[in-house]
Amino acid sequence: MNIDKIKSLFPIFKINKEIVYLDSAASSLKPQRVIDALTYYYANNGSNIHRGVYKLASIATDAFELTRKNLATFINALENEVIFTKGTTDSLNIIAESYKNFINEGDEIITSELEHHSSMLPWQQVAIERKAKLVYVPLDSDHKITVENFKKVLTDKTKVVALTHVSNVLGYETPIKEIAFLAHQKNAIVILDAAQSISHMPIDVKDLNVDFMAFSSHKMYGPNGVGVLYGKYELLEKMPPVEFGGEMVHLTNKENATWKVPPYKFEAGTPDVADVIALNEAVSLINEIGFKTIMEHEEKLHQYTLEKMSKIKGVNIFNQKADHAIIAFNINDVHPHDVASILDQYNVCVRAGHHCAQLVSKALNQPSTLRASFAIYNTYEDCDKLVDAVIKARDFFNQF
Amino acid sequence: MNIDKIKSLFPIFKINKEIVYLDSAASSLKPQRVIDALTYYYANNGSNIHRGVYKLASIATDAFELTRKNLATFINALENEVIFTKGTTDSLNIIAESYKNFINEGDEIITSELEHHSSMLPWQQVAIERKAKLVYVPLDSDHKITVENFKKVLTDKTKVVALTHVSNVLGYETPIKEIAFLAHQKNAIVILDAAQSISHMPIDVKDLNVDFMAFSSHKMYGPNGVGVLYGKYELLEKMPPVEFGGEMVHLTNKENATWKVPPYKFEAGTPDVADVIALNEAVSLINEIGFKTIMEHEEKLHQYTLEKMSKIKGVNIFNQKADHAIIAFNINDVHPHDVASILDQYNVCVRAGHHCAQLVSKALNQPSTLRASFAIYNTYEDCDKLVDAVIKARDFFNQF
Repeated sequence: MNIDKIKSLFPIFKINKEIVYLDSAASSLKPQRVIDALTYYYANNGSNIHRGVYKLASIATDAFELTRKNLATFINALENEVIFTKGTTDSLNIIAESYKNFINEGDEIITSELEHHSSMLPWQQVAIERKAKLVYVPLDSDHKITVENFKKVLTDKTKVVALTHVSNVLGYETPIKEIAFLAHQKNAIVILDAAQSISHMPIDVKDLNVDFMAFSSHKMYGPNGVGVLYGKYELLEKMPPVEFGGEMVHLTNKENATWKVPPYKFEAGTPDVADVIALNEAVSLINEIGFKTIMEHEEKLHQYTLEKMSKIKGVNIFNQKADHAIIAFNINDVHPHDVASILDQYNVCVRAGHHCAQLVSKALNQPSTLRASFAIYNTYEDCDKLVDAVIKARDFFNQF
Repeated sequence: MNIDKIKSLFPIFKINKEIVYLDSAASSLKPQRVIDALTYYYANNGSNIHRGVYKLASIATDAFELTRKNLATFINALENEVIFTKGTTDSLNIIAESYKNFINEGDEIITSELEHHSSMLPWQQVAIERKAKLVYVPLDSDHKITVENFKKVLTDKTKVVALTHVSNVLGYETPIKEIAFLAHQKNAIVILDAAQSISHMPIDVKDLNVDFMAFSSHKMYGPNGVGVLYGKYELLEKMPPVEFGGEMVHLTNKENATWKVPPYKFEAGTPDVADVIALNEAVSLINEIGFKTIMEHEEKLHQYTLEKMSKIKGVNIFNQKADHAIIAFNINDVHPHDVASILDQYNVCVRAGHHCAQLVSKALNQPSTLRASFAIYNTYEDCDKLVDAVIKARDFFNQF
């Protein structure tokens, strides 16, 4: 697929021709077909699923379950291993809240300083509650997670390994397949935060052999409000549900209740029907473009920009060796928020802050950073505009 | 507002002119302006909120917070007492999961057999976990919750009262203001499940003086995927968060973390930005029509249908005295699913089953029931078509 063709699939670029959107790690923009799927469902249907006998409800149910089926294929899971949640954060919290029942005093939980808060905090809190020990993989000198360093913290007491697939600040990819292999030798489970990898590289949960994985629709060109929790069926089966309500209960009397089988056990209440249905269009789009094209394109832009940015005096790049198309940087001593405001004047959207990963900031010894993150709709022109705007911002602040 | 005007605001009736939608208690249909708001946000923006410095993110944040402000006005709460969740089920679970920290062995929790599973099950599970006692308000001979019967179960040990505002099966309204007054004399908190009342009657949380309230966007003409949790600020302040991640944390180090103030403390992760923004259109629509018009219209249709249905031989109505426009019925000994299938052939959408309220079915001594539920877009023609289809269904099954 031609690159101009991809950009033209996103209506925002017709409406706002000047926009240079480099904040896809926070939320990706939406292609027309996703918007059309939402509009179609709401204008032609709008009914609830599973519970209805009539045609509208049955059509909605089929469309909803089709997304589950296609997502299962997308990550090489079984359909009943795909649970719909509110987002990555919700997915990761559900795993921690449920699996904590198997965590006892003295058990060890491995995580890292590269984690997004949603990956680390749930287990930090479980560790406090269950008197378990939270252990951090030491980062190497580039702030990467390595197999060698993982081995240093893996022990017979390790019960859980909760790691990011791709760092949302530094773009480093965790060697999760090797880590999962080692963790399983100690009978620990492995949880993968795939929020930053799901739309940028192919993921095969059976090949990686992770036990759980979480990701969000809104970061993979799908609508807001939906996330996925993948879990190995045999683990989901033995885990207690964490939300109680309609559709997840099998039988109840006044005193107690029994639950349905996974995935329904973990899907209490009316799900986000419209957004799940529309997410299917995002999955189809990624499939149609193909990860080979996506990865080549994003990496070309990444290296092109990195080369240009590295030559700008006064700009510090914190992740020269990033595996994925994310550039974390600062300009001299200027506060990132001030830089981002100037970039915004040139229609360049980048993120400034700690990116919900305060431990990364601490590791970098930077209170906050700027982050430019790329996606399939970005172009060389976007990269040039970013570079130009960064130079202008530097020059602007150099005046003072 | 003229009634034909209201119906014409919902695009499904232009596309599917024959549809008689009487399942609004499960999900309401969506007006064009809600769909347009979604389309507009996704086509013109799509960015994440709170975290961004650039204009797009700031526009999205303002629109998102405007919904919070208007919802606060809608229920007479403060803005920082309005928390966005996944839905009513999520809201009710968050309250139980957080407030259970204040529940001890021997404490009493009052609920009822009229509850939707999402209102009763979270507290049933808390009662089991904390060795508290779950107590059910005895229903009167019509299966209603009365103040008199509530007094019988309220004790000095009562810590929580979790009740539905309007029964999703029987349409009965709970005298919650009187109940809250009594409960507070015992220092118990009161949680109101307003899923079935929020779009059908004005609610003033300060006047009712409930401590928490939950409702869903998708049952009030808004998009799927969003719910609201109202809580008194001083209670929210002292309660621990239940989900951990981005935007809810204030500071974190490796060992522990501190949280932001409400409502952010309870809003971990990227919220359902688009759907929250579009929900504002649903709130505006309800405000513009006005509850006086809504209530008069729905009650007229309710009484009109009830009178006609009561005359059909072989039809048993279980809630002749319903306060709201919900009719629960069965035809002789025919299974409700079979009846619903026949009604569907006449384009009449009603629900069949236990309606996620198994204890109601038990109280009625019916394994399941049919339910016709009304909303602002229904007409006398819809009522006639329901009645005709019910007669035809009865005659069809009478053959056998």
